[in-house]
Amino acid sequence: MQRVAVIHGPNLNLLGLREPEIYGTTDLATLNNDLAAKAAELNLELDIMQSNHEGEIIDYLHNNFKSLAGIVINPAGLSLTSVVLRDALAAVRLPAIEVHIDNIYKKDDFRQKSITAAATVGQITGLGAFGYLLALEAVADILRREKY
Amino acid sequence: MQRVAVIHGPNLNLLGLREPEIYGTTDLATLNNDLAAKAAELNLELDIMQSNHEGEIIDYLHNNFKSLAGIVINPAGLSLTSVVLRDALAAVRLPAIEVHIDNIYKKDDFRQKSITAAATVGQITGLGAFGYLLALEAVADILRREKY
Amino acid sequence: MQRVAVIHGPNLNLLGLREPEIYGTTDLATLNNDLAAKAAELNLELDIMQSNHEGEIIDYLHNNFKSLAGIVINPAGLSLTSVVLRDALAAVRLPAIEVHIDNIYKKDDFRQKSITAAATVGQITGLGAFGYLLALEAVADILRREKY
Amino acid sequence: MQRVAVIHGPNLNLLGLREPEIYGTTDLATLNNDLAAKAAELNLELDIMQSNHEGEIIDYLHNNFKSLAGIVINPAGLSLTSVVLRDALAAVRLPAIEVHIDNIYKKDDFRQKSITAAATVGQITGLGAFGYLLALEAVADILRREKY
Amino acid sequence: MQRVAVIHGPNLNLLGLREPEIYGTTDLATLNNDLAAKAAELNLELDIMQSNHEGEIIDYLHNNFKSLAGIVINPAGLSLTSVVLRDALAAVRLPAIEVHIDNIYKKDDFRQKSITAAATVGQITGLGAFGYLLALEAVADILRREKY
Amino acid sequence: MQRVAVIHGPNLNLLGLREPEIYGTTDLATLNNDLAAKAAELNLELDIMQSNHEGEIIDYLHNNFKSLAGIVINPAGLSLTSVVLRDALAAVRLPAIEVHIDNIYKKDDFRQKSITAAATVGQITGLGAFGYLLALEAVADILRREKY
Amino acid sequence: MQRVAVIHGPNLNLLGLREPEIYGTTDLATLNNDLAAKAAELNLELDIMQSNHEGEIIDYLHNNFKSLAGIVINPAGLSLTSVVLRDALAAVRLPAIEVHIDNIYKKDDFRQKSITAAATVGQITGLGAFGYLLALEAVADILRREKY
Amino acid sequence: MQRVAVIHGPNLNLLGLREPEIYGTTDLATLNNDLAAKAAELNLELDIMQSNHEGEIIDYLHNNFKSLAGIVINPAGLSLTSVVLRDALAAVRLPAIEVHIDNIYKKDDFRQKSITAAATVGQITGLGAFGYLLALEAVADILRREKY
Amino acid sequence: MQRVAVIHGPNLNLLGLREPEIYGTTDLATLNNDLAAKAAELNLELDIMQSNHEGEIIDYLHNNFKSLAGIVINPAGLSLTSVVLRDALAAVRLPAIEVHIDNIYKKDDFRQKSITAAATVGQITGLGAFGYLLALEAVADILRREKY
Amino acid sequence: MQRVAVIHGPNLNLLGLREPEIYGTTDLATLNNDLAAKAAELNLELDIMQSNHEGEIIDYLHNNFKSLAGIVINPAGLSLTSVVLRDALAAVRLPAIEVHIDNIYKKDDFRQKSITAAATVGQITGLGAFGYLLALEAVADILRREKY
Amino acid sequence: MQRVAVIHGPNLNLLGLREPEIYGTTDLATLNNDLAAKAAELNLELDIMQSNHEGEIIDYLHNNFKSLAGIVINPAGLSLTSVVLRDALAAVRLPAIEVHIDNIYKKDDFRQKSITAAATVGQITGLGAFGYLLALEAVADILRREKY
Amino acid sequence: MQRVAVIHGPNLNLLGLREPEIYGTTDLATLNNDLAAKAAELNLELDIMQSNHEGEIIDYLHNNFKSLAGIVINPAGLSLTSVVLRDALAAVRLPAIEVHIDNIYKKDDFRQKSITAAATVGQITGLGAFGYLLALEAVADILRREKY
Repeated sequence: MQRVAVIHGPNLNLLGLREPEIYGTTDLATLNNDLAAKAAELNLELDIMQSNHEGEIIDYLHNNFKSLAGIVINPAGLSLTSVVLRDALAAVRLPAIEVHIDNIYKKDDFRQKSITAAATVGQITGLGAFGYLLALEAVADILRREKY
Repeated sequence: MQRVAVIHGPNLNLLGLREPEIYGTTDLATLNNDLAAKAAELNLELDIMQSNHEGEIIDYLHNNFKSLAGIVINPAGLSLTSVVLRDALAAVRLPAIEVHIDNIYKKDDFRQKSITAAATVGQITGLGAFGYLLALEAVADILRREKY
Repeated sequence: MQRVAVIHGPNLNLLGLREPEIYGTTDLATLNNDLAAKAAELNLELDIMQSNHEGEIIDYLHNNFKSLAGIVINPAGLSLTSVVLRDALAAVRLPAIEVHIDNIYKKDDFRQKSITAAATVGQITGLGAFGYLLALEAVADILRREKY
Repeated sequence: MQRVAVIHGPNLNLLGLREPEIYGTTDLATLNNDLAAKAAELNLELDIMQSNHEGEIIDYLHNNFKSLAGIVINPAGLSLTSVVLRDALAAVRLPAIEVHIDNIYKKDDFRQKSITAAATVGQITGLGAFGYLLALEAVADILRREKY
Repeated sequence: MQRVAVIHGPNLNLLGLREPEIYGTTDLATLNNDLAAKAAELNLELDIMQSNHEGEIIDYLHNNFKSLAGIVINPAGLSLTSVVLRDALAAVRLPAIEVHIDNIYKKDDFRQKSITAAATVGQITGLGAFGYLLALEAVADILRREKY
Repeated sequence: MQRVAVIHGPNLNLLGLREPEIYGTTDLATLNNDLAAKAAELNLELDIMQSNHEGEIIDYLHNNFKSLAGIVINPAGLSLTSVVLRDALAAVRLPAIEVHIDNIYKKDDFRQKSITAAATVGQITGLGAFGYLLALEAVADILRREKY
Repeated sequence: MQRVAVIHGPNLNLLGLREPEIYGTTDLATLNNDLAAKAAELNLELDIMQSNHEGEIIDYLHNNFKSLAGIVINPAGLSLTSVVLRDALAAVRLPAIEVHIDNIYKKDDFRQKSITAAATVGQITGLGAFGYLLALEAVADILRREKY
Repeated sequence: MQRVAVIHGPNLNLLGLREPEIYGTTDLATLNNDLAAKAAELNLELDIMQSNHEGEIIDYLHNNFKSLAGIVINPAGLSLTSVVLRDALAAVRLPAIEVHIDNIYKKDDFRQKSITAAATVGQITGLGAFGYLLALEAVADILRREKY
Repeated sequence: MQRVAVIHGPNLNLLGLREPEIYGTTDLATLNNDLAAKAAELNLELDIMQSNHEGEIIDYLHNNFKSLAGIVINPAGLSLTSVVLRDALAAVRLPAIEVHIDNIYKKDDFRQKSITAAATVGQITGLGAFGYLLALEAVADILRREKY
Repeated sequence: MQRVAVIHGPNLNLLGLREPEIYGTTDLATLNNDLAAKAAELNLELDIMQSNHEGEIIDYLHNNFKSLAGIVINPAGLSLTSVVLRDALAAVRLPAIEVHIDNIYKKDDFRQKSITAAATVGQITGLGAFGYLLALEAVADILRREKY
Repeated sequence: MQRVAVIHGPNLNLLGLREPEIYGTTDLATLNNDLAAKAAELNLELDIMQSNHEGEIIDYLHNNFKSLAGIVINPAGLSLTSVVLRDALAAVRLPAIEVHIDNIYKKDDFRQKSITAAATVGQITGLGAFGYLLALEAVADILRREKY
Repeated sequence: MQRVAVIHGPNLNLLGLREPEIYGTTDLATLNNDLAAKAAELNLELDIMQSNHEGEIIDYLHNNFKSLAGIVINPAGLSLTSVVLRDALAAVRLPAIEVHIDNIYKKDDFRQKSITAAATVGQITGLGAFGYLLALEAVADILRREKY
């Protein structure tokens, strides 16, 4: 069974608890349960982590990439600033999907870009917590076609 | 049964026939078949159109929005230039998902934005023809939660 | 009796039907009736057209300019993007007035300019449907002074 | 009878006397007479002032807004630079129409914007002295509909 | 005999009839006759079309590229705005030469670039109607060397 | 007893009377009373002035700087545009504190800077009328340490 | 007694020890003592932390916000780069005051902005270590008025 | 005898009194005496004014241009911001020379331009108070050649 | 017989010898022979020069313009930087055609412009060494029509 | 014996293991051995650390600067984003040399700058792992001349 | 007697011969005679040179600076592009005055700056050939005051 | 023995003679002696040239590249402006190292880039004359590994 990492970036531990008008009411535990269910359905093993530290996410990627087949990552605000996370994603050469819960194109101008997305297969933005499930499906699809 | 439009923008009629190294080898008919199968699975009725004319896509939206519950749209290059298509999407007030086959963040700088996406629920980019299927799932999810 | 064209650009067929909080509740038929009444008062013959196609508006200008004395045009979103419409307006060399229903200076930054207005006599923005009537008066004033 | 201010900004006292190839041959006294006639027709009382001092225009707005129902203002070059005039127009919360005699879109790039217009209902540009009369009509229309 | 398309973009149907001080006095029929003569000399078959519709030009390219050996195109103002035309030119993978009648480097700043030229072999600008004839020679040269 | 000027820039005479949702409900007289009380507490003599005229504020600085030990200034919109006020503040070489009532970082992009602040010791923004009192404390602190 | 966090960002542990010509000679321990004294005077409980790690500051905010009534934060260089810190400040929804020791408007251009300040009540810049004490007063004032 | 205005803009009344390291030690009275002597030598009548008010300088130009043959103006900081002063200089159509005491190219980036200079014959910058005398010579030269 | 200069700018002496994948395999001698043959055909006398020195090219233009009827120039990288070459081309007032061997629109962003082209009749880019021959034809055409 | 720190920034622990086509095949252990040998030759004591955490590098600098005589640092992607690292380097006031393995001028535009380099003595870019050895020589040279 | 260099930059050998509508009808020999006469009057020895080669002007400065007391230089287009000329002017540390014959503020945007002027005492622009004479006076004034 | 060129760009002949506070006190002859000694140590033959002429440096590269194995070049200010020098370096396809004596990141913004460096292997900046010696070592290292 192939193992896929789900990486929740900074502040996502507050998901569903703060600013629900922007990020919805699903909390992180619920989302992780939904992801686990979807993974089971797709016959994937999940490894979920959350960190508010750029360095911890990079360490995680370095320490785990050999046992991983794919990545679902929501870098949150780090997608706008972190060249080193981009470089880490590029270095591990795994199929990664970037997820944003809300639609970056409806936010402030400075949020309408992504530094990290160029090091991923693609990006899903604006589809809420459901976007994570689609990203997992996308990883499964890529692995199924063995095309990566 | 709710009806969802799938709108293929300019040049997508050539999908799979030209530049397969960028856009893959799936042609439009095959993609449309896959979409039909996925729609059946999701209990949605599909209405698929393709046009190379900005005006025809806007006319289509105006003429059909009353009978539609949602939209999957790949505006292709129009996403970079068409304010009037954005205004049409905003006017019809339906849940729309923007799809791009390749990852806009890996392309030329001038392609790393979207004028139209701000008038949609969200965007899926870089996941190939499979991105359309995910977009259809997302529309179904939105309608299921009746939250739009 | 001199003939004046009134050109409604993309999405204006939905006027009054969608997003009334931005564009008011007057629909296009009512506006056109008001324009007809004002034209009668000003002793002008009107020719009204609406299109969502940039190309159709240009064709219209090319096919009709010989019989026209002036133009009232609301290019809608095309005022932000269409160099070819600007060139068509410049080519026909008729006194044209550009109208925008809402105040472009209160909208998103990218809407606070006009490519097409440089090819017109002037622009009226923010005065609602009433702006069209003023534009018609302005055309009449120009023709009266025969100064164009 | 409702009172409307007409505010002529810097250098407009020279109207018709200098650079007639740009600003026409109508002088300010004639324009003010035309405005008075139009106001009578619209059943409005006019209060006309001209100043080359940003501060005097702001003082005027502060000292008179309680007795005014609307404003027609040609801020001239101040529309390009005066944040404090914009703030004054916003503070008095009266329906104001900004007028420019010539078409700002045909002038130097740095003139193709307006800082002040965002604090007004709308803008009329390029229609010569006649634009003032249209602005007065627009104020009357707004007051008639009591919608402001 | 190889077939070459000559595509005249928006407003070129007015060539020679309007603004001769910019675009010269040669009208489109005369230019097309000159092109036919030059084509005969070069042993090429011509297919000439003109349209004011971006979509029609793209449709034309899609419908005809299989029978064409090369393209001469004057996209007019579309060269400044049309990503979808660029994408269509790239998709058909034929040797295309972009022509502009006047020198874009002597015009307004916003006209001193081309979005479409990157999808062509090269560009000829500023040489009047004669530039079309040179473009045809260039296509012939490319086909002769069979190097495309 | 050392004398400190408090300078209220354009539109601040309307403080508390207009747009209280932005600027609070404290009017200028009340604020000035609060400042007087705070000054007494700090053993400072106050000289308060308000003007909507850039030139008057500069004249005031020139005419009074010899008798002043420090300055509290809210330049309002002039902080965004007035190089001459900046130069006047630099010329008089007194410790000045710039105050803004609301948080400039929550306002329009063009308001998120200050030309004048570089000629002051520092800036307090977003703390309402209370910010003036803190600025007065800061001036007192500077004078106390005689470090300026 | 309400609890207020004082957060010292990266490099502030060196305060007073290095580059005193820019940052003064007060060291962090002395500043913290001054803050404790001021807090006692204002009847506030303080919780002071310093970190050179963006992630630790965010963790601190997440772990403590429930017990806090307000925040005084000097993000140091993070104010220029850290979207995730801004998002954390916005998420915890506490009244925060941003402090900078030196005047950002006298420094390099790239330092004359703040990403984080938009998520705070306001900012105090340039008033040295004394700015912290004023920030504490401002928090007390906000809590006193219970207006946050 | 022809009359030439010498206009000293904002803050120049402090010339020689403040910041001598930038502006030298010549005070305004001395400079004016030097100008008077030079004018006598050149057989010109001088009219000297200084104001810190943009509006007063414009009023002065409007009220005096009929009796003037030329202008020497140091707009100080207004050269960077005042479109209305530029428009006033353009309106009076007199040969004007712009003077800056210090070299604008050695100052902050935002000072390395001039809005007003485009409405003058030319600019002298960096030559200290001596630059005024040269400007007066230049006006005399222009009048001598009667070429303006 | 009219004389036409062919000017090869910096590095073109290496043509065909270095980087043939960009600039083709034709060397400069061969190109010059082709140009000579074409000139004979067009009844033109050629004067060919190559220099890596901006100053030498300007000297050449100054020393020869009286005996020249037209110019074909490939300024190479100087087209991106040399204002003085542009000024020299403008000063000699001869019909000049700018040639670039490769398509500037397919190169780095900073190469997609030309400072010098505004001082020429027009530009041919991307057509290889053949572009020179077309440029010579264009000069002949201009001279034939005696319209320059 | 003087002690010099060698600091490897984020992702450099993967050196030689991933993307060898960009970063070469030398792994970090080998590079560190080469550095140790070179240090011995230069009579320097080395202290080598690597971290993916911006905060850890800053902590390291703060905790060790008193025992260090110089620094060789490859900040990797942090050179593009980390103001706080720049501030830490400036605070410790040691001679530091910034090293990049590949040539930043051959990479994406956004990589062609360095925020941190302004706080160092100089930068070596593009010389592979060998650049570290040169940097160590440069530190030795600086210490030898005791000029820092 | 002190020696002053007069340096005429590229294309100035054509002065008065070409484009007199921009540069006047005075030719370089006449101007040099006028300069000689003025120098005699000011008791200065002149050394005049003209070159179209950036390198020659730099060589001239290097070879002569020891015998020179000041410089009058019209760098022509080099003022917009030549960092090396700026560096040469800075290196020789002589009082230099930059002259431009026409007013750079009335020309194309890209001409409204100067790279070289920051390495001079000041600039005179727009005063025609007469500007050179004023520059010579300015050099004499500087030398007289022995203040440089 | 392999031959390496050392190219000193404009103004470097003044090295050590002028502005020693920026460029140090080592003069060019001394530096060249140091380079000769280092070359002997590295078993390389040196060819040293200096020129203030862009064209001469390009000529030198063209005339000598066949006999050279590598290049050390300090283009001085040409690194900021010379596209033709970049193209020459690219054309000769030799391993080149760019050297700057001072740290470009501590200088004016417009100096913090390099046009030429993209055509070299790498760049050494800020290490004084010693940087040249390191560059020579780097060339030797590249040749030793025969990897270029």
